[in-house]
Amino acid sequence: MQPEATVRLPEENIRELVVKFFLAHHLNQPQAESMANMLTAAQRDGSLSHGLQRLPGTLDTMAHPHFNKQAEPVAERITSVFTRVDAQNGFSCLAVERGLPNLTESAREFGVGILAIRNGFHSTALWPLVEKAASLGVAVMSMNPTHSYVVPTGGSKALLGTNPMAFAWPRPNKRPYVFDFATSAAARADIAMRKNAGQQIPVGWGVDKDGQATTDPAAVLAGAMLPFGSHKGSAISTMIELLAGPMIGGRTSRDCMQFDQGADAAPCHGELFIAFSPELISGPEAMQSAENLFSGFNEQEARLPGDRRYAIRDVSAREGIPVSTSLLNRILALIP
Amino acid sequence: MQPEATVRLPEENIRELVVKFFLAHHLNQPQAESMANMLTAAQRDGSLSHGLQRLPGTLDTMAHPHFNKQAEPVAERITSVFTRVDAQNGFSCLAVERGLPNLTESAREFGVGILAIRNGFHSTALWPLVEKAASLGVAVMSMNPTHSYVVPTGGSKALLGTNPMAFAWPRPNKRPYVFDFATSAAARADIAMRKNAGQQIPVGWGVDKDGQATTDPAAVLAGAMLPFGSHKGSAISTMIELLAGPMIGGRTSRDCMQFDQGADAAPCHGELFIAFSPELISGPEAMQSAENLFSGFNEQEARLPGDRRYAIRDVSAREGIPVSTSLLNRILALIP
Repeated sequence: MQPEATVRLPEENIRELVVKFFLAHHLNQPQAESMANMLTAAQRDGSLSHGLQRLPGTLDTMAHPHFNKQAEPVAERITSVFTRVDAQNGFSCLAVERGLPNLTESAREFGVGILAIRNGFHSTALWPLVEKAASLGVAVMSMNPTHSYVVPTGGSKALLGTNPMAFAWPRPNKRPYVFDFATSAAARADIAMRKNAGQQIPVGWGVDKDGQATTDPAAVLAGAMLPFGSHKGSAISTMIELLAGPMIGGRTSRDCMQFDQGADAAPCHGELFIAFSPELISGPEAMQSAENLFSGFNEQEARLPGDRRYAIRDVSAREGIPVSTSLLNRILALIP
Repeated sequence: MQPEATVRLPEENIRELVVKFFLAHHLNQPQAESMANMLTAAQRDGSLSHGLQRLPGTLDTMAHPHFNKQAEPVAERITSVFTRVDAQNGFSCLAVERGLPNLTESAREFGVGILAIRNGFHSTALWPLVEKAASLGVAVMSMNPTHSYVVPTGGSKALLGTNPMAFAWPRPNKRPYVFDFATSAAARADIAMRKNAGQQIPVGWGVDKDGQATTDPAAVLAGAMLPFGSHKGSAISTMIELLAGPMIGGRTSRDCMQFDQGADAAPCHGELFIAFSPELISGPEAMQSAENLFSGFNEQEARLPGDRRYAIRDVSAREGIPVSTSLLNRILALIP
C-alpha cells in the first residue's frame, strides 16, 4: 500500500472539527463534546480504527430510527456501590462520563463499585474511559456485548459479539497500565480489509456459513468470526455477554443485532464498569507491589499493553496529531 | 497407554478417606473437611487433575516451613461490600468457604461484593467454590496468581503465573453456568506428561530458557510456558496478578515462587472473588434474558463449559465415583 498523505493538526483543532461535525448533524452539545474527546484521544494515540475514521459511520448510527440526538443521561445511584446511567439511546460515552464520578467514589469509600450503562450506541473504544478512571486512583475493568458476529467454540453459527474487555490499573507518578481488546480472534475491519485487498486470512479467524474453517475473508464475513484463544476466549466472551448484557438489563449481542434492523449502526447496548480501590483494600503497599511486577516486564524488555499508545501520544503532543488528508477531506465534505 | 484399573466408590466413602488422610497428618478438622469436599467434588466430576491425585502432593505443601495445620480463618467484613479472610497459612479453600456467606450477602444487598483471601495455600480448583456461590443466586468471578511459570508476551522469562480465572452464573432450576481455566496455553502437568512419554508438545505452549520457541517439553519445563491467546491472554494474566495479588495484599506469582523456597508446595497467595446480584441489578428479567443466550448455544449444539462435568457427576451419583486402584493404594499407604 502507498503511504497515505497526512497532515498534523493540534489536538484542539481536531476536537473542534469533530464537535462542528456533530453539531452540524444536530447532535446536542454534551454528546458532541464527549464524542470529540473520545475520537480525538484515539486519533492522538494512534488507535486509528477508533479515531476520526469512525466519524463518517456515525451518520449511520445517528440515522437509526431509535437514535436520540438530544439524550441527556443522568447518573442514578441505586445503592451505595451501584450506579446506573440510561444513555437514552444516544452515544454511550457521555453516559459513561456522567457515571464515572459515582463509580470512583463508591470504590474509594467501599473498596468496589459498579457502573451499568443502558441503551447506549457504542461507537468508541473503552480504553480512554478506563484510563480516565485509573488516573483518579482506582483499578477498573470494563466490558460490553456488541453485534453477534462470533461463533462460540463447538458451535457453527454467530452468537457472541466481538465483546471487548478493557482494564486499567493506577500507577503513582506514571500513566496507568491499560489494555483493551476484542475477544474475537481478529477485528472485523481487518477481515474486510483483507477481502478488499484480495488476500487470504489466517486459519483460526473464522468459519463459513456452514461452520467450516476457511481462510477466505468473504466467506467469514458471510459466516462467523472465531473467538481468540479457542474455548477460553469463547468462555470469556460468554461471561461478557452475561455480565454486561442480561445482568445489567442490557441486550445480548444477538439482541443488539436484531435491534439494528439493518441500519448498520453501532451496537446499542449496555456496558459494565467494575472499579476497585487498591488503597482501601490493602493500603499503599499495593501500589509498590504492583510496580515490582511491572519491573519484571521492564527487566526483560516486554512491552506493557499501553506503551505503544503512550509513545505515540508523546509524538502527537510535540508534533500534532496526524490525520490522512483524504479522510480529512471526506469529513469536511460531510459538514454541511 | 493401558486403561488403568479403577474402582467406583460412594461419594461419602471418598470424603471419609480424604478426611482420614488429613487427620492422620495432623491437619485440623475444619481444614480436613474443606479439602475433602473440594477434592471429592473434583474426582466426582471427572476433573481428575484436581481430584484425589492431588492428595499425595499435599504432604509437600503441609511440610512447607510456614504451613499452619491449625489455621482457623475468620471472615472480617471490612466494609459493607468487602470481606477479607486471612487463611493463616493453611489451605485456602476453608478461608473461601468461611467468606462466601458475607460475599453473597453483600452482592444481594448492594449489587456487588468482593471477598479477598490472603495467605492461603492453594491446592484445589476454583470451580467448586464459584459453583457454590452461584447456587446461592449470585454471579461470581474468581482469580488468583500461582507460581511464576509463564512468560509475558514479548518477553523471554517466566514472570506470570498459570493464573486461573473462574466464573459462574446462576440459572433458575438448572445447575449454574461455570467455567474455570488456567491462563497458560497448556497445563504444566500436561507438559510433564508429554516429557515422561517422550513426546513433543505443540508450538505455542512454551519457550526454552533463552526465550526461544520450542516443542521440547523438557526445555519448556526448564524455560517458561506461554500464555493462552497470545498478547490477550498475557494481558488477562497480568490483570489477575494485579487484582488478586498486590490489590488484596497478596503475593504476585514471582513472590509466591520465592516464598516456596524449593518446598514444592502449592502456591501460598491471595484469591479474589467478585460477586454480583443480577436480580438486584436489573430484576428477574435478567435470568430469562440469560436463558435466551444459553438457548443460542443449545440450538447449534455448542456445549457449555460445565456440561461435561455435570454429565460425569450424574454418572458418579448413580454408579459411584471412579478412582484408579493404584492411586487408591498409594493414598492408603500414606495413611499411617
